Amino acid sequence: MQTTKTVQKGVGNGSNPVLESGDYRVADLSLADWGRKDINVSEFEMPGLMELRKEYGPRKPLQGMRVAGSLHMTVQTAVLIETLQELGAELRWCSCNIFSTQDHAAAAVVKAGSAHVFAWKGESLQDYWQCTDRVLTWPDGEGPHLVVDDGGDITLLIHEGFKAEKMFEADGTLPDPDSTKNAEFKCVLQTLRDSVQRDPTRFQRMANRVIGVSEETTTGVNRLVQMARDGTLLFPAINVNDSVTKSKFDNTYGCRHSLPDGLARATDMMLAGKVCVVCGFGDVGKGCAEALRAAGARVFVTEVDPICALQACMQGYTVTTLEEALTEADVVVTATGNRDIVMKEHMARMAEARRPGGSRPASVPVVCNIGHFDNEIDWEGLVQDPSIRRETIKPQVDRFIWPHGGSVVVLAEARLMNLGCATGHPSFVMSCSFTNQTLAQIELVTHHDTGKYQNSVYVLPKHLDEKVARLHLPKLGAKLTHLTDSQAKYIGVDKEGPFKPAAYRY
Amino acid sequence: MQTTKTVQKGVGNGSNPVLESGDYRVADLSLADWGRKDINVSEFEMPGLMELRKEYGPRKPLQGMRVAGSLHMTVQTAVLIETLQELGAELRWCSCNIFSTQDHAAAAVVKAGSAHVFAWKGESLQDYWQCTDRVLTWPDGEGPHLVVDDGGDITLLIHEGFKAEKMFEADGTLPDPDSTKNAEFKCVLQTLRDSVQRDPTRFQRMANRVIGVSEETTTGVNRLVQMARDGTLLFPAINVNDSVTKSKFDNTYGCRHSLPDGLARATDMMLAGKVCVVCGFGDVGKGCAEALRAAGARVFVTEVDPICALQACMQGYTVTTLEEALTEADVVVTATGNRDIVMKEHMARMAEARRPGGSRPASVPVVCNIGHFDNEIDWEGLVQDPSIRRETIKPQVDRFIWPHGGSVVVLAEARLMNLGCATGHPSFVMSCSFTNQTLAQIELVTHHDTGKYQNSVYVLPKHLDEKVARLHLPKLGAKLTHLTDSQAKYIGVDKEGPFKPAAYRY
Amino acid sequence: MQTTKTVQKGVGNGSNPVLESGDYRVADLSLADWGRKDINVSEFEMPGLMELRKEYGPRKPLQGMRVAGSLHMTVQTAVLIETLQELGAELRWCSCNIFSTQDHAAAAVVKAGSAHVFAWKGESLQDYWQCTDRVLTWPDGEGPHLVVDDGGDITLLIHEGFKAEKMFEADGTLPDPDSTKNAEFKCVLQTLRDSVQRDPTRFQRMANRVIGVSEETTTGVNRLVQMARDGTLLFPAINVNDSVTKSKFDNTYGCRHSLPDGLARATDMMLAGKVCVVCGFGDVGKGCAEALRAAGARVFVTEVDPICALQACMQGYTVTTLEEALTEADVVVTATGNRDIVMKEHMARMAEARRPGGSRPASVPVVCNIGHFDNEIDWEGLVQDPSIRRETIKPQVDRFIWPHGGSVVVLAEARLMNLGCATGHPSFVMSCSFTNQTLAQIELVTHHDTGKYQNSVYVLPKHLDEKVARLHLPKLGAKLTHLTDSQAKYIGVDKEGPFKPAAYRY
Amino acid sequence: MQTTKTVQKGVGNGSNPVLESGDYRVADLSLADWGRKDINVSEFEMPGLMELRKEYGPRKPLQGMRVAGSLHMTVQTAVLIETLQELGAELRWCSCNIFSTQDHAAAAVVKAGSAHVFAWKGESLQDYWQCTDRVLTWPDGEGPHLVVDDGGDITLLIHEGFKAEKMFEADGTLPDPDSTKNAEFKCVLQTLRDSVQRDPTRFQRMANRVIGVSEETTTGVNRLVQMARDGTLLFPAINVNDSVTKSKFDNTYGCRHSLPDGLARATDMMLAGKVCVVCGFGDVGKGCAEALRAAGARVFVTEVDPICALQACMQGYTVTTLEEALTEADVVVTATGNRDIVMKEHMARMAEARRPGGSRPASVPVVCNIGHFDNEIDWEGLVQDPSIRRETIKPQVDRFIWPHGGSVVVLAEARLMNLGCATGHPSFVMSCSFTNQTLAQIELVTHHDTGKYQNSVYVLPKHLDEKVARLHLPKLGAKLTHLTDSQAKYIGVDKEGPFKPAAYRY
Repeated sequence: MQTTKTVQKGVGNGSNPVLESGDYRVADLSLADWGRKDINVSEFEMPGLMELRKEYGPRKPLQGMRVAGSLHMTVQTAVLIETLQELGAELRWCSCNIFSTQDHAAAAVVKAGSAHVFAWKGESLQDYWQCTDRVLTWPDGEGPHLVVDDGGDITLLIHEGFKAEKMFEADGTLPDPDSTKNAEFKCVLQTLRDSVQRDPTRFQRMANRVIGVSEETTTGVNRLVQMARDGTLLFPAINVNDSVTKSKFDNTYGCRHSLPDGLARATDMMLAGKVCVVCGFGDVGKGCAEALRAAGARVFVTEVDPICALQACMQGYTVTTLEEALTEADVVVTATGNRDIVMKEHMARMAEARRPGGSRPASVPVVCNIGHFDNEIDWEGLVQDPSIRRETIKPQVDRFIWPHGGSVVVLAEARLMNLGCATGHPSFVMSCSFTNQTLAQIELVTHHDTGKYQNSVYVLPKHLDEKVARLHLPKLGAKLTHLTDSQAKYIGVDKEGPFKPAAYRY
Repeated sequence: MQTTKTVQKGVGNGSNPVLESGDYRVADLSLADWGRKDINVSEFEMPGLMELRKEYGPRKPLQGMRVAGSLHMTVQTAVLIETLQELGAELRWCSCNIFSTQDHAAAAVVKAGSAHVFAWKGESLQDYWQCTDRVLTWPDGEGPHLVVDDGGDITLLIHEGFKAEKMFEADGTLPDPDSTKNAEFKCVLQTLRDSVQRDPTRFQRMANRVIGVSEETTTGVNRLVQMARDGTLLFPAINVNDSVTKSKFDNTYGCRHSLPDGLARATDMMLAGKVCVVCGFGDVGKGCAEALRAAGARVFVTEVDPICALQACMQGYTVTTLEEALTEADVVVTATGNRDIVMKEHMARMAEARRPGGSRPASVPVVCNIGHFDNEIDWEGLVQDPSIRRETIKPQVDRFIWPHGGSVVVLAEARLMNLGCATGHPSFVMSCSFTNQTLAQIELVTHHDTGKYQNSVYVLPKHLDEKVARLHLPKLGAKLTHLTDSQAKYIGVDKEGPFKPAAYRY
Repeated sequence: MQTTKTVQKGVGNGSNPVLESGDYRVADLSLADWGRKDINVSEFEMPGLMELRKEYGPRKPLQGMRVAGSLHMTVQTAVLIETLQELGAELRWCSCNIFSTQDHAAAAVVKAGSAHVFAWKGESLQDYWQCTDRVLTWPDGEGPHLVVDDGGDITLLIHEGFKAEKMFEADGTLPDPDSTKNAEFKCVLQTLRDSVQRDPTRFQRMANRVIGVSEETTTGVNRLVQMARDGTLLFPAINVNDSVTKSKFDNTYGCRHSLPDGLARATDMMLAGKVCVVCGFGDVGKGCAEALRAAGARVFVTEVDPICALQACMQGYTVTTLEEALTEADVVVTATGNRDIVMKEHMARMAEARRPGGSRPASVPVVCNIGHFDNEIDWEGLVQDPSIRRETIKPQVDRFIWPHGGSVVVLAEARLMNLGCATGHPSFVMSCSFTNQTLAQIELVTHHDTGKYQNSVYVLPKHLDEKVARLHLPKLGAKLTHLTDSQAKYIGVDKEGPFKPAAYRY
Repeated sequence: MQTTKTVQKGVGNGSNPVLESGDYRVADLSLADWGRKDINVSEFEMPGLMELRKEYGPRKPLQGMRVAGSLHMTVQTAVLIETLQELGAELRWCSCNIFSTQDHAAAAVVKAGSAHVFAWKGESLQDYWQCTDRVLTWPDGEGPHLVVDDGGDITLLIHEGFKAEKMFEADGTLPDPDSTKNAEFKCVLQTLRDSVQRDPTRFQRMANRVIGVSEETTTGVNRLVQMARDGTLLFPAINVNDSVTKSKFDNTYGCRHSLPDGLARATDMMLAGKVCVVCGFGDVGKGCAEALRAAGARVFVTEVDPICALQACMQGYTVTTLEEALTEADVVVTATGNRDIVMKEHMARMAEARRPGGSRPASVPVVCNIGHFDNEIDWEGLVQDPSIRRETIKPQVDRFIWPHGGSVVVLAEARLMNLGCATGHPSFVMSCSFTNQTLAQIELVTHHDTGKYQNSVYVLPKHLDEKVARLHLPKLGAKLTHLTDSQAKYIGVDKEGPFKPAAYRY
């Protein structure tokens, strides 16, 4: 593992399993105390997970289960990890984003022996995929029973590994990093090449062992659905993203919190009076637009879906195209889950307007991504254009200056700016998402032998979705009303729920 | 037909079919000119319907179809009626609420010969069901091919009529109004008793003829789903309510407009600083709460569903029970779609606090319903209690005064206050709903013989839902973005849509 | 008095002074019962006035005072009138706007004998000024001790009358209606001409008798300040408009309520997604913009004052010129207190864009005024242009149609649309304003002989302003915090207030 | 100067005057490059200052003026400093808050030679007052011509120094640090004691030389007004705080931005659904409440002033007392400008409710101050109580844990949390404030000999206030409307402004 981090063989204390090379703390144990205090305070904001510890802790439904996780290694994730551990799991963890690790959280988790953690803030792409590979490799060389995924990178590695091994088996072909120009996929191929050479049936054994994966994001789910449709999915998947208490909470209210937080920490820019363009008005875009409006910005929305566009209209946003908004825009946020949203040409036109003598001199627009992958913004186009000078103001805040003097600031190297420039979503809303994750893991184990889950993609049953909400209400002092028998009968539901048909949109 | 209206046989002019006894204009032709001007202006706000006239008018897909409608006879409905007529339909219409008819709209429709209309503002319950019966009776004694329903009262009458005829056929039993204490159902039974005696196979022939119904509301859909589940549904039903462009627009944004409108017209009460309780945080409740908050009110929400309750929390509303909020509440709005929400006992406690010497003297709380049926509020309990004095301030605004002097104002006799005290939803949002209705009618006719629609409940295909939105965007100056080929491929959708999976929640 | 109303000599009942020709009830006593019930309910919403009745009623500080009022004759004003009466005053009242009278309120006041009322909804300009003149004429031919003014029309009549009498005295010149083209000032001059001919020293005696005036509006205050500056003011004036509890409440929160109310009652137009232009971002404009935004509109603001313009920016409104916004605008609201804001040429350009084939076909923009005088909009320009067809949709809602088919709707004949199309501000906020009015009247009488008030313009002392607020808090359940001695000392104020320096802006 | 910083005699480069002991960069030159880049980007957000550089730079109105500043040494202040320098001033600067210095900004200013800077993040109280003293001591031993103050600490030191010297002159009394228990005032007295002993007429010469001070805050202005009232003010003061473009912008919109920013950086707490109490509803409290509401919090307001309380009601906030809100409160923010708002007893009750078994277990409320001095919160009471354990989670975030286990988090040691935990107000709004500061400095110098400014407190003339706004509009794309001659005449103002009377409240 070639990284900029010093890596050495560590030895754990009593409560700590023997440390492995690459565990976070090997380099930065010093942050662990701070991390522990931060985790302790976050537990107060994650009532769903804490209640699951109380409810399931004693009977340990995950006992003996190896869980591999790829999910932003933050303080909140630490509370998830320690919840899964308390339910009996043995954990290995990496981050699903090169900038999203909070080092103090990683250190505290390692120090407590809660999990082996292969993640730090500011990984290289090579680091990233090696860490992902390490998470799948228990000391005995075998893989996990369960996967917690966010964006689907563990799932991708297993499935690509499986394919590579089959190809190698067939005709000795090895994955070839030179076969792609995509910098990231090069690393994936290198990682697989090394693996196949080392152990040519490893991923096949792994696919066989995995009971299932629970996936956190729209993008990851899209990949899973595609594979299920193609018949290539190797194990059952629970789509946690589409639990109401995930997609309508984390995506919307999480971003409502973390978009302005990321902008403030990165740029300290006042949003009042500024023109902010939100590309995409899905759950994420809705939260972003609400936050920007609330800060006093004038919000423009771009959309391809006429229904979402009409929703944006009804909320008073101006629905237009990026092309029309470029000159006026002070901030552009991508929240589409699609690719090629803000291209170099767009940014060049933005910069052009800001050159001395341009239509909007004396300003520098900010471009950032809160959707999913960095390909929403043409980062590659910028960094590979030698005529555009890159000035790093501080880590994750880069100003690109065109020869005419006009410039654009891009945050977090086009990756998720709320994780790269701030600390991601706040604990409370992550508690909703992670309570879903935990229930999904329990569900997969519990129904392992029942045939309930095939190699397909499932959402959690509605009663569990409602349970997640129910666990979070007392923290906010909310009091539920209870149906009478006659009321329940009148609307044809059980008094204890679920209360809505499957198609209900909330 | 025994009503308070003068009824006489009218004779139509050239463009007007011969008027029938009961047609609105027979009594009040004088309002027709005003109604026409109002309809003309509303057409500007209903771009979806006007575009359908352009697109389908020439080929008249509803040619020869008899359409019976039960839907608030407002200016907006007039535009729907005249759209259906332009597509070829022959129409008979009644209102689905005793207070919701706008007399000038009814008059204009009758004068133009667009439909036979049996509806006026302030019907008795007896009037109401006789009007509904009339709508189902073409001059040849036969019924409609298509039904447009809002709340399901036409559908109910046909199904109950069908059952009654079967019972009469079996053993001569006639529907007995004395078998129920419910004032409204008494009228239904009387209407059916008369019908069975007059023509004992009429509803059976009607059920046979009906191609399908398109239904507008949650409540009506619930009834349909129940019947479909029980296998008693007599014809296909399209659930227009659950088109996204209906439930997420009309229910939410319509009520956001019409709740404060109804409160203002009925009471002129300033909402700023007041405590307003919204019972139910579904699509309707969400719109109500947003409007009240925007007016400066302090908004409390009651909910039984923990997910909706948590959504209310995230928006900053106080989630509590009605019991806890009673004393503080200045306004209580029911938006549950359930029964027995605000009972006489609740109102007695509200009034008690407002008596001289009570905890909140010198105030009169307002109770109103924007959900669906009047049984959300215990109107019967109030009017039948001789100890409570009823003082009608103006039509649809009643103050109930307890002996101790405390009092409560109830709007619209507990029926939909936005229709009873104001003019219902505004044209633009009704254009969305009614464009769905029109597309549903076309869909039912087009697929009449294809077997696509069985005696079950369907939602419109998503591409039509998106079409409805698309037709309304230009009016608001909104510009859609278009997917590139590679973007469409990347997210796995057709470039022209539909853009989202069926379960997407918007 | 030549009006369209039947006028006859009435005879009062026991509690009623003998009615005069012109008293409202002479024509429409039938509405009095409804008016009384409405007034009774409004009293619950006007805690400031009701508390003043309790506090001052017993000692009757206005005993023997003749009070002449010119202020929208609404239900709320009825509560003011009856409060002043309970404090001992003898009252005569007219409306300060030809459309703003609520007939049922006027009827109830007359029936109760609370005041002589010369006002009805829909006066002609001639009616209007004759009513104003009648209000100044007690049966003995003499005038009032005190004036309550809104817009300054009573004050204007007295001052113009005074000047006319002086001119007549000097050289026999009589006011000449033909000397002006302004339709309204013609009526003023005719009224004065009649008066001078009838009684050439009447206004001089009146000016001498008047103790003072309390004025409600920005416009009226501007006139007073001008006269005070010129040394022509004939009696002391209290500027009630600039009490904080007036200008920051009635102007802002009143309009926030009554602008959307007026738009809804007049047009039922959905505001969501529409472009609404607010001309002027003073206290009134701020309330309007907030209401329109809250309804989902996209709000543009026009301003001349850079500070107010920057405030609009900070709240996220687009600040632009009317010229730039014309084509996009769906609604234009004037709130400037200045003249010539929306001219015929502006409206012609709006209509032009809406003609068939124009850039925004199939729409009809709405233009209305909530500032003060009807000269904010070029109503005269429209009605006097024979090429523009006027179609009255309903009273106070006129559509002007250009030959090319494009059209514009103007509300309330360019007068205050919230009063012309709805019922003005709600009771609670008017209670703040009228509590100031009442305190001002008491203040003028109390200090009549002390020399505290000269022929100049004063605001109420801050402790009274705070008192007005204090009287309204309990109704909203608000609990004040109290300063400790050391805290009061620390910030250098009295524990009981006033709490702020005079220049504090709130 | 005894500090934790390494202090040494530095030598400047070409563009840099010889460094003095204590200049920031002596310790941390390494941050200067980052600071410079940050300053450069901030210049884009501070159009008012940049325009003043263009307008006044060439004629250097501050040529030869020594300016001493005590104002948070942030990036924004760096732009102010460099603007004053470009106008000709020689500058020495310290921070007015021990936590508010941004070290990279200080370093960049020092490196550029723009000013001598005596400030760093995390000073001791002793450091703080020694730095203030250093700022007043030019190398020749004499003081400044002009003072820029924020909170009035330079002004205080000069006035207290003046008094101390007079007392020493009279009877040889020296300031005695032991005469006070207040930790901060001890430092002031020690500083003065040293000064009097060193140079017994220094402050008298300084008071004589100072042309005037411009003061930024409510608190500082209160002190000045008090001194002016007592006749002890030693030089003219311009109250920049009460420029509209300061108090209605920086206070309100600055805090709207920086309160949630501070909370997020310190705690990452989600505000949605939480109960947040804002103590004080002045300009600062208004901004805080708006921000918290916008984040989805339920906002309670405490107030002593009934007018401000009624404003809070009109905006839909719950107005109550701190005592009533303690148990529910998740966040308490002080914004009163008064003392003793949240006492140890209050926090003890908050903690008590959060102990295991309490009414709100599993939560930790946050208490913070955004008003002015740290005495709004009883920090001393907490840290001096040995029974309460202090756990520093990270700098400026302290958790106080009672023996029963309940706890409270206090931010920034009760000092301004937006400066202590985040970066203070954003550049754009500070540009408004600092443009006022710069215009005030120019005004003081320009009118030095004209007698326009006596030893009293003045606000800037309205035309300058409007100029500040005008300079900031183009950045936001705002377009002003211009009055016609007839309009200007109609409302009685000059076409170019000022547009409003002095008492206008905006």
